[in-house]
Parts: sequence; structure tokens; C-alpha cells
Amino acid sequence: MRTIAWEKGKVRIIDQTQLPQRLKFRLLKTVAAVVRAIKTMQVRGAPAIGVAAAFGCVLGSSRLKDTAGKLIAARPTAVNLKWAVERMLRVAKAGRGLPPEKLRWLLLEEALRLAEEDVVINKKIGRNGSRLIKNGMNILTVCNAGALATVDYGTALGVIRTAHASGKKIQVLAAETRPRLQGAKLTAWELKRLKIPFTLITDNMIGHFMQKKQIDLVVVGADRIARNGDTANKIGTYTAAVLAKAHHIPFYVVAPTSTIDLALRSGRQIVIEERDGSEVTNIGQERITPKGVRAANPAFDVTPAKYISGIITEAGTFSPSRLKGAKL
Amino acid sequence: MRTIAWEKGKVRIIDQTQLPQRLKFRLLKTVAAVVRAIKTMQVRGAPAIGVAAAFGCVLGSSRLKDTAGKLIAARPTAVNLKWAVERMLRVAKAGRGLPPEKLRWLLLEEALRLAEEDVVINKKIGRNGSRLIKNGMNILTVCNAGALATVDYGTALGVIRTAHASGKKIQVLAAETRPRLQGAKLTAWELKRLKIPFTLITDNMIGHFMQKKQIDLVVVGADRIARNGDTANKIGTYTAAVLAKAHHIPFYVVAPTSTIDLALRSGRQIVIEERDGSEVTNIGQERITPKGVRAANPAFDVTPAKYISGIITEAGTFSPSRLKGAKL
Repeated sequence: MRTIAWEKGKVRIIDQTQLPQRLKFRLLKTVAAVVRAIKTMQVRGAPAIGVAAAFGCVLGSSRLKDTAGKLIAARPTAVNLKWAVERMLRVAKAGRGLPPEKLRWLLLEEALRLAEEDVVINKKIGRNGSRLIKNGMNILTVCNAGALATVDYGTALGVIRTAHASGKKIQVLAAETRPRLQGAKLTAWELKRLKIPFTLITDNMIGHFMQKKQIDLVVVGADRIARNGDTANKIGTYTAAVLAKAHHIPFYVVAPTSTIDLALRSGRQIVIEERDGSEVTNIGQERITPKGVRAANPAFDVTPAKYISGIITEAGTFSPSRLKGAKL
Repeated sequence: MRTIAWEKGKVRIIDQTQLPQRLKFRLLKTVAAVVRAIKTMQVRGAPAIGVAAAFGCVLGSSRLKDTAGKLIAARPTAVNLKWAVERMLRVAKAGRGLPPEKLRWLLLEEALRLAEEDVVINKKIGRNGSRLIKNGMNILTVCNAGALATVDYGTALGVIRTAHASGKKIQVLAAETRPRLQGAKLTAWELKRLKIPFTLITDNMIGHFMQKKQIDLVVVGADRIARNGDTANKIGTYTAAVLAKAHHIPFYVVAPTSTIDLALRSGRQIVIEERDGSEVTNIGQERITPKGVRAANPAFDVTPAKYISGIITEAGTFSPSRLKGAKL
């Protein structure tokens, strides 16, 4: 089952805000609808929003420059969005002068290629990463870096999936990941379908379970990786990384090479999206705080390279300090 | 306003499960009702449940030994419960042979004394601790160690309150504290009433805000402090302590000396209450996870002494390693 697909001239997505209660598909017909789906996190996860934006470029091919700007601006942190849109712009540039229908066709081909590549890449990542997973390991995940965050198969969860499929006995600890609860809602939904044993924990239990030696490895996704290996990922990732280091637990970032932004010298240059405080003060329909409470809501944080044991990509696993010289 | 009081032969509590939506008082008429209120966290916080149990002893004075056992067993981690009940048992022992009505009177006097002492102690703690707070500081709190966790005034929040009352400009970052959200519900409610500026954050943002140098000090309460300074407190405290150390931020435990359990050599001997997983999988009326998901729910964790800059009590501020020799 694909998280994103092209269906009869429209972009079909799984509306992730409805999970785990309902598996609901949505058909997006316009660029505005794609932008809205990305902003409201109906579609989320760095690779997934990249592909969604690529399909968005097809929908808006008649005004591609304008379309590209809107899509890139939908969310600022994940570089895959920009990367995918720029790939589409290169196709348009190469096809300059072609009749609009022909150009649209080329763009669609590119978007479909991008979507298919994502799945192939994730499976490669899974194979590369699963070597690090030993029988009997307890593995911590943060947020959702599964099939839902990609076109299919997932990145960090893809590594876990490959290890599990190869017969390794593993146990996942899924951090719920406030405020949006992607761990509790999406990762739990995926792991349950895959029949991979897991226990849900709240984010503030991570230290406790590391202290109790019930976490052997941490794998997380990424939204943007700077040239020096500093990695932006879902809020809470940095906290998990500091805890992992203090407990001498390996901490791996898992992402396609398209998440690496060689233009950025360090993580300090990464723009962190600040989302509405209501995501913190409200859960579902319920306001959990008194009225008028101010809440901070940075959607991501930056984990400096020194906390990262390795970056697992489709091209292999790199020490963060080796990223700069790697042929990607 | 007292969190707990004796009112016409009954124990009056604020039902903390109703906050922040409703400020609802409950009158508890039986030992069973007190035990239930403690178990379901209608009354919570180490000092508060100690005083509630003392009043419970008055209600159950005719079968005090049985009453004491039930009250102590209501929650295992906070030592104040045992401490308060044992104080009541000593009164009963000294009054052995007295007519039941007279004994009940003596027990009530002791419980009232215990409640009044708690407020006096907290104000002393506040004065002792506020010296550590400098103008302009950003202070992180975990869970609720405020008036609601005590009879009045609070411990960690009492320190903040004293500093604020003395005119120091401070800003509180309140961690929401999953799964029960005491930070979002109770600490936010108290800080708002006290007009102390604060921002609510999710627990997994702590690392991020420390990295951004937006936290200068951490103050937390305690449920049980071992002789070597190891401290059990609400789940997430250990995570905050490890993060504080990694960022060279002072981390203080704030508690009355009654929370110190000199009988325990180290924190390893502290029993950690495991609560129902539904507190993690459900928020209010809403289930956030797929059906049938297993969740861990340790209610507390243990912060080793090496992470603790000092323990602020009514008798002064102690280095955790000095606790053993201190005259408490």
C-alpha cells in the first residue's frame, strides 16, 4: 500500500491525521490542496512530502515556477521538499519549449520515477541498516519514520522491518512523540500491522528505560542533514541523542541521501519550523491546559554530529564527519 | 486555599483529576474513600498524600492498624505516605488505653499539626531555595510540585513563588509531564493564578531549549530520597537531570526532610509504581493509539545523586553526598 500515488490525474494520499482510527484516502486535485495537505500534516515525513510536492508540480505544471514556490514554502525544515521540487524544475528546464501537455507528461514521469525510487532506496537503506541490528535487541524509535513517512517501506522503521523479516528477534520501544503523537498513532499502527513486537512509551520515559538497560539502539529519521552531519529531525530527537550518548547507546540517523543538504555547513543554518501552540495545549478535541496558556511548539530540533554514531543511507552507512567527502 | 483540610469530620480535598476545567472539592468520609482518592490521583504529590493519609487515620481510628496498612499500600513510591502514617501510629501508641473518642481527638490534633507544619515547612523551603534564583532566570519545572502537591504553597513551585514574590523577574518553562499531564493541567493552573510568567512545553522539548540556552535552572520535587541522595520523582525527572548535566545546568531537588528515607542505602531500593498502560494509550476520553497496544507506565524514575546539584529542604540546602551526615 502506497502512502502517495498518482490516480487518474490526482494525487492520492493517506490522510495521516485520521490514523489510527480510520485509514482514509484523499484525492488532491489542485496545488492548493497539496500545499494544505502538507501544512496540516495529512501527509508528513520528509520523503513523503517530497514526493507529494513532485506530484503537486504535475498538477501545477502550467504555472510551474509559482507552483514550486508555494510547495517549497509549505514546510521549511525538511529539505526533501525543495530537493524534489528542484528535480521537477530541472525536467521542466530541459523540456523548455515543448507543448504543455508533453511537458506535463514528462513531469509526471519524473514524479512517478521519484516515487518508485523512494521505495527502492528505502529497501536498500533497510538492508544497509539491518546489519547493525543484532538478535534480541531492544530498539528505540522516535516519531514515525515508517512507510507513512515515505512512499512505502520507511527509513528508520524500514531498517527494523528488514531485520524483523530476516528473522531477528527484536523488540521496539516507540516513543509517542508529543505534540502530534506520531509514535503513538502512526508508528504503533504500522508496527501492529507488521506484527513487530513493540511497547509504547511516553517521551519522558526514554531516560528511565536507558538507565534500566532496556534500550540497545536508537534509530531515527531525518528532515535535513547538514554537510557536517548535524541533523534536524522531529522535536525530541536531540533529547534522545543526548540520553543515548550518556548511556553509551548507539544512535543512528536513517535517511535517503536526498535528505543531505550539502549546501549547509552546519545544523545552525537549518530553519526550525515553529507550529501553533494549540498542538500542545489541545489533544484531539480536548484542551488539556487552562485557557490562555502559551505553549512553545518547535516542530524539529537539531542533533549535532557528535551525538550520531552513523548515518544510514542507500549509499551505505557514514560516520557524520565523513559525509562531506562521500560520493553521494 | 488548602489542597487538603479537615471539615466537620471529613477530609476535604481538591479533586485534582478535574483540574484545570473545574475546581471541585470532595469530602471523603471513609478510609476506603481516602485510599481510592490517593490511588486514582484525585489527591497526589508526596506531601499531599502524606497529609491525606494522616486524616485517613483519623477516619479509621477505631481499626488503626488495618487503616494504616491500607493507606500505606495505596501508592508505593512516595515515602511521605508511610512517614505520616507512622507518625499517627506513634500517637496512638503513646495514647494506648485511652477511650476511643479521646484517642481519635489526639489523632486529629496530630493530623492537623502535620498539615499546618507542611505549610510552614514549604515556606521555609521557599526562602531557602529562592536564594539560588537570580533575576532573569529561566527555570524548568517537571510535573507539579506546587500547592496542589502539598497542603499549600508547594515545594519546587514554592521556591519559584518566593523568588517571584520577592520581585525577581523569572520565566518558568513547565514540562507537560506525560502521561498524566500534571505540568499542563496543574502547574499551568497554579502559575496562571499566581501570575508568574510561563511557557508550556512538551517533555521532549527539554533538550532543545537547553541547547538553545533557554533554561538556566531546573527545580523538581521528590517522592523519596535515599540516604545517598538518589531521588525518586515523577517519570521524566531522570531524563531532565541527564540533560541538565550534559548542558551544565544546575539541577535541584526540592522537598521537605520527611521525603528523605534514611533507611534506604540507595535509589536502587526504591519501589517504582507501575500504573495502568491506559494512562498512556488514552488522553481524557480519547484513545490515541490503535486498539490493543501495550504501553509501559512506570510512574516514577530514580535520579542518581551525581546528577543533583543540591537538595533544598526546610533545614537548608544539602549536597546529596552530605545527606547521610546531616542532622535532619
